[in-house]
Parts: sequence; C-alpha cells; structure tokens
Amino acid sequence: MDFEKVCRLVNDKNYSSLKSELVKAQPYDIAEFLDSLEEKQALLVFRLLPKEVAVNVFAHLSKERQAEFSELASEKELADIVSDLYFDDKIDFLEEMPANVVKKILKNTSAVERRLINQFLMYPDYSAGSLMTIEFVDLKKQMRVGDALEKIRRTAPDKETIYTCYVIDAERHLEGIVSLKELVLAPVDKTLEEIMHKEPIFVNTHDDQEYIADIFKNYDLLAVPVVDNEHRLVGIITIDDIVDVIEEENTEDFYKMAAVQPSDEEYINAGVLTLAKKRIVWLMVLMISASFTGYIIRHFEAALQSVVVLAAFIPMLMDTGGNAGAQASTLVIRSIVLGEVDSKDIFKVIWKEMRISALVGVILSALNFVRIYFLEKYPLSIALTVSVTLVFTIIIAKIIGGILPIIAKKVNLDPAIMASPLITTIVDAVALIIYFYFAISFIGINV
Amino acid sequence: MDFEKVCRLVNDKNYSSLKSELVKAQPYDIAEFLDSLEEKQALLVFRLLPKEVAVNVFAHLSKERQAEFSELASEKELADIVSDLYFDDKIDFLEEMPANVVKKILKNTSAVERRLINQFLMYPDYSAGSLMTIEFVDLKKQMRVGDALEKIRRTAPDKETIYTCYVIDAERHLEGIVSLKELVLAPVDKTLEEIMHKEPIFVNTHDDQEYIADIFKNYDLLAVPVVDNEHRLVGIITIDDIVDVIEEENTEDFYKMAAVQPSDEEYINAGVLTLAKKRIVWLMVLMISASFTGYIIRHFEAALQSVVVLAAFIPMLMDTGGNAGAQASTLVIRSIVLGEVDSKDIFKVIWKEMRISALVGVILSALNFVRIYFLEKYPLSIALTVSVTLVFTIIIAKIIGGILPIIAKKVNLDPAIMASPLITTIVDAVALIIYFYFAISFIGINV
Repeated sequence: MDFEKVCRLVNDKNYSSLKSELVKAQPYDIAEFLDSLEEKQALLVFRLLPKEVAVNVFAHLSKERQAEFSELASEKELADIVSDLYFDDKIDFLEEMPANVVKKILKNTSAVERRLINQFLMYPDYSAGSLMTIEFVDLKKQMRVGDALEKIRRTAPDKETIYTCYVIDAERHLEGIVSLKELVLAPVDKTLEEIMHKEPIFVNTHDDQEYIADIFKNYDLLAVPVVDNEHRLVGIITIDDIVDVIEEENTEDFYKMAAVQPSDEEYINAGVLTLAKKRIVWLMVLMISASFTGYIIRHFEAALQSVVVLAAFIPMLMDTGGNAGAQASTLVIRSIVLGEVDSKDIFKVIWKEMRISALVGVILSALNFVRIYFLEKYPLSIALTVSVTLVFTIIIAKIIGGILPIIAKKVNLDPAIMASPLITTIVDAVALIIYFYFAISFIGINV
Repeated sequence: MDFEKVCRLVNDKNYSSLKSELVKAQPYDIAEFLDSLEEKQALLVFRLLPKEVAVNVFAHLSKERQAEFSELASEKELADIVSDLYFDDKIDFLEEMPANVVKKILKNTSAVERRLINQFLMYPDYSAGSLMTIEFVDLKKQMRVGDALEKIRRTAPDKETIYTCYVIDAERHLEGIVSLKELVLAPVDKTLEEIMHKEPIFVNTHDDQEYIADIFKNYDLLAVPVVDNEHRLVGIITIDDIVDVIEEENTEDFYKMAAVQPSDEEYINAGVLTLAKKRIVWLMVLMISASFTGYIIRHFEAALQSVVVLAAFIPMLMDTGGNAGAQASTLVIRSIVLGEVDSKDIFKVIWKEMRISALVGVILSALNFVRIYFLEKYPLSIALTVSVTLVFTIIIAKIIGGILPIIAKKVNLDPAIMASPLITTIVDAVALIIYFYFAISFIGINV
C-alpha cells in the first residue's frame, strides 16, 4: 500500500479514489494506516471499507483504536463487525474492552453464543482454552472422502482453517485428523476411517501456551486440536496465534533476564506507574543483596586504607566478572528454553565452562598484567593481585553462571531469573573476597 | 510415543513389534529416540522404518546423527533418502555435511538438479533464497478453477504446500496468488484471473530472514512467494521454516545482549575454542572500557584516602545503576525489535524513563538512607552522599538505557548491542563521578 498516496487522498477528501485504493490493500496495512490517523478521520475512513474487509481490518487495529471505534459506533454497526470476527479474535477483543462496550456487544448476541463466550472468558490466561477458536471442520469417520470434501466446501466460508479436519464421534470425542491435502489425494469413495491419522497430536484446554508452542515447533503443525478432560474436541489452535505466543514467551524471557517483571502491555503504551512497579521489586532485591558487598569492603577497610589504589581496580574486576558470568548464564538459559540442555547435563556444562573460562581468563588476565605492570608502572605485587584475581573471578563467574540456571530448572523455578543481574550480584561478592585475600598475601598488608 | 516401551523392544531385539510401534509414532519423536541411541543401534532401528517415514525421520535427526548415517549408508540408500527430502531440507542438509558425503550424494543426482543445488547453495545465509523451497504449485491465469483443482490433485504428492497456489505467466513472472480455500469455494468454471489476488505479498531472494519473519507475523501468512530481480517466481517459503527463523533471531538477540557473538551451533555441541572466541572479544572491549572507571577512582584517590568507607558503597551504586539501565535498555530494545518503538519515539521514551526513574530512584534512595543513617549509624553526610548519588545514577542510567538503543537503530547498528553489559560500563563511570563530587561537597573533603 502506498501510504503517501492514501494520506493525500484522505486530505483531499477524495473518498471514491481512496476506497478503490483501500480495497486493493492488505488488512494489516489498512489497520496500520487507521492507527496513524486522528480518531474521527479514522472512523470516517473505516466506514468506507466493504464489510468483509472492515472485519479483517478491525481485528488488526490497536486495542486503543478498537475501544474508540466501539464507543463511537452504533449498536448495529458494532454487532455487524463483532459477529463476523473469528471466535478467538472475538474473545481477545471482549477481554480488552471496557464494561460498557462489552455490554453493548453481548446485548446483540444470542443466548447460546453468550454462554459460549462466558465459558471461553473463564479459561486461564496463557492456556490452550484462551487461544483456541471454534471455527473448525468436524467430520465423521463413516463419511466417504467425496462427501467430506462436499461438507468442507459448504462450510468453508465460516472456518478459520479448512486445511486440517477433525474426525469426531457422536459424543464429540476426537478420533482422528485428516489434512485437506490427504483428502484431495484420496479416492473419493474411501471412508475417512481408512485414511485418517488415528493417534493425532492434541493438547488439553488447560495446557500452557509455552508447551503448545513447543508442540507446533517440534511437529511442524498448522493447527492442533484442543480437547477437554473427557477427550472431547472443544476447539483448535492455529499457527498464526502460535507465532504471537512465541514472541510473547521470548519477550517474557527478555524481561525476566533484565530483572523486570513480565507484562502484557506494550512498553510505549504502558503507564509510568505500571512500568515502575514492574521494575522496582527486583531492583530493590538486588540493591539489598549488593549492599552485602559493602560489608565485605568494610571488613577489609584496613587493607584498603593502607593501599587505597586497590579501589581503582574494583569496578573493572566486578564488571568483567559480571559480564563473564552473564555470558555463560545467558547461553545456558537459552539452551534450556530451546530444549538443548537439561538437568542431566550439569557436569557437561561445568566442564565446558571450566575450560572456556580458564582460556578466556588467562588471556584477559595477561592483557591486564601488561597494562598494569608495564604500561601504568604499578608495583608487581599489585599487578599480580589484580591479574590473578581476574582469572579466578572469571572461572568462578562462568561456573556459577552455568550452574544456577540448571539448578533453577531442577527445582522448578524459571531459569531466566538466573540471568545477568543476579549473577552479577553474586559474582561481585565473590570477586571482592578473592581480591582482598590475594592483596593481603601478595602485597603483604598487615591487617 | 512410549519411550520406555520402544527402548525395551530395542533391548529385547523384538524388531517386529518395534516396527509396528514406530510406524504409529510421529517422525519427530522417532528422530529424538534415534538421537538418544548409540550409533550402530540407531542405524539398525532406522533401517526398520518404511521409506516414506524414514525420509521424514531423517529430516528431524541431529546434524551429528545425519552425518554418521550418511557415512555408514550405502550410496543407494543415501540417494533414496536424499532424493525424497524437500528441496529446502536437502539444501540445509548438504550445507552441513562434510565434503565426502556431499560428493557421494551429488554423484547420484541429475545434472539439472546438481545445477539447481549449486545455485541454491550460493544464496547468502539468512536470505530468502537460503530458506525457500521449489516444491510449490504454479498455475496460469487462463486456467479454470476446475482444471486448477485437477492439476493440484495430480501434483500434490510432491509439493511442500498446496494451500497457497501461485499464478505465473509464460516467463514465470508472479501475477497473483490464490488459496486452496478460495479455489474450493469458487465456481469451477471461473478463470483464476477472476478470483486471484493481483497484488500478492512477496519477497526478494536477497531479503533478510528477519524482514521475512516480520512479513509472516504481520500478514498471518502460511507461505510467501520469493521472486528474483526480474520478478520471476523462483521459490516459496513456508511458515514452519519461519517459526525456526523467529527462534533463531531471538537467540541471536539474547546472545548479543549478553555480549556474546551469535553462533549457529548449539551451546552443548559447540567446541570450547569456538565458544571462547565468541565471548572473548566483547569481554576484552568491556574490560578495557571498565578500566577507565579505574582512572576516575584514581583521580579522586585523595578523597577516598581521607574517607575510605566511601569505597564500601561503590559496588551497590554501580550494580543498582547498571541494573536500572539494563531494565530500560532491554525494554526499549525489545520494543524496537517488535516494531512498537522507532526513532521518532525518542522524546517519548526519554520523558517516560525520566518519570519512571525519578519515582523508582526516590523510593530506593529513601530505603537506602534509612539503612545507612538509622540502621548502620553512618554520619548524615555519608548517608546523604550515597542516597542522592543513587537517585541521580538511576535517573541517568534509565535515560541512557532508553536512548542508546534508539540511537543505534538510527545509525543502522543493531540495538541489541546497547544492552546490559555496555550500559553497565557507561553507567559505572557516570555513577562514580557523581558520587565523588557529592562526597566532596557534602562531606567537605579537601582535595
């Protein structure tokens, strides 16, 4: 879509050209465009769209714009749009809207649908139930392929996907699945029982979305059936929603690894108070833990008093240790998330990190020695203290960084919390203790 | 699949039961199982699989196991498997194999296919060309719907997807797309020209995979056509490969944000030397930058000498500043990646971070003051110095953390490098300068 052109057409109030430009465009692009316009103008443009396009565009609008439109639209207009949304989009929309909009919408739905909506709204967040949709094709195993294709053709317009079809019995128990490709390739007079997969992959309404995303990734699915505790088919989840879940789960990990409590809201739209709340808890915990390093320094105050230049190397030692630990913990956390590492690998990880850290530590430490002793002409004892501390700090940091996420996983904590901030705090304390002990023995300070 | 059961069957050498158990299982599960067996045993079990299952299982095996099998398999066996792999899987496989295996395989392919393979191997890594496959359905716009469906039925067994079909002219220029759903719903005597989408979304062979993943996410696609510079259709990319790309891109960001150079290899399989190399460059850069904080401390050595207890608060100030900055930078980096924030939002981000950091800073600082002054009975001047420094450090850290990723994006650097490690190093220096200036004025040290 040519953004500049449509903007010009809006400003020129050339609505007929605008309309013919918009019907050619992708719903996502139109939604992006409407999101960028000012409220009244956006509604005006939105009303130009043919109904089938309007529904698709509406589903892609930002939540804020959806709410505005819903407030401004007439009851009839709103009912028209909402009734044509796919069921999963409808539930998402209702969850976000203020109570008065929800009321306006529910007034215009049938008692049956209202009951269904209420049932779906009750599934826990991040569960299969909250992701699924009800617009799938169900077939019976006695059906012949030709009849099944006929049924698909008849019902396709209302279905979110027709590419995987679900075979159920009279009590709606899931008995098998068959793809449209298989139906198209099979002789028309075979029964579905002969061609369907009898042990299909399925998930339960209460399964967590992270688990469901893994299923899609491992088995390369386009859709997965969702069953209740009696193995009755209640919905399906399609890949487009799973792509969003994958990004959500990754965002959650990024947040946790930066010591921020995860949030559903976009950063740019979230309120200052909300964001502050999500950050302050961890900052406080880490600040209090970091205070303990203060006690370590106080404990060695006499040593520091007699060789005050020791303080000059503390930031470098702490930062390098923290970074070395964060590298290891990030790699291990990510490997756990991707299913490449689990708790039985702990000794493999320790052995690997020991060798990496020894190598990296010795090189960095040599570099440091050259700088401190030869370039900056510090006494040998100080150069040695700093360099030897650096090697040990890096080795310990990398081992701690490698082990803690695995232990967290083992005791059912999220490995992502064992990331940079926490590792840094722990490594800082360790680095300082090593530093002062070496200082005392190498420099020969009397304490 | 019941892992324990199949393990038992393998150990009992009960191959007929094992075979009937395996044909019911998912290829991914069989591959996982084979990866867990010892080499010879794995090959023995693999040879039990019917050919069509074997190909699917092979595509899911680990690279190491694929290489072992390829070494051990006869030329004929290998040719049988490889010829049935989808073209994109075949290319991925060939890219990973040692030269002798590649030679063994290419010997058994036709001259035409060999040329095609070589062409595909030349597309840059992470480009559309390296992701695409050639098994798609192409149609002509003069075709009637009925004939198109007939052609799809005829060619479907060899196609990776039949759910989106591509309309091309005699020179293979992409003219439109039509989904199988639309074909199924359309009257059989309409021409494709009447029902196809004439402005389909497409990508170029040289487009980057991150851009392509965004296209899939925004437009909810199952497949996208790939064209060359003359707009000729050369391949398609399917959603299952994009799901892998999304995880790859996220892994890359996690690595960069922990100051590790990205790598394609799994952590647990990568060599110590490789991993050390990926980490040492950034560690060295950050170590050298962190050394500058040492100069700051040396500059204020006299102040430190007279009030040595000042050193006790340096780690806490540095850590809290680093964490506060990392929180802001992580949130902003992630928002940029997800397309929620771009460079025009810089002032919005600054204003938001200023308010958040003032709020968070004042609360944490008050907490600190209580601890230092009331609980630990330090003099008021020291408690004030630390607390006021903390407020300023948090504010500056959050603003730096918020701005730097946006600036990186603006100058076409990857925002992900402006993450925790670099922010920490910068904030450390700033925090120290503020700290000593306040110390000098509040405590009244003569320097």
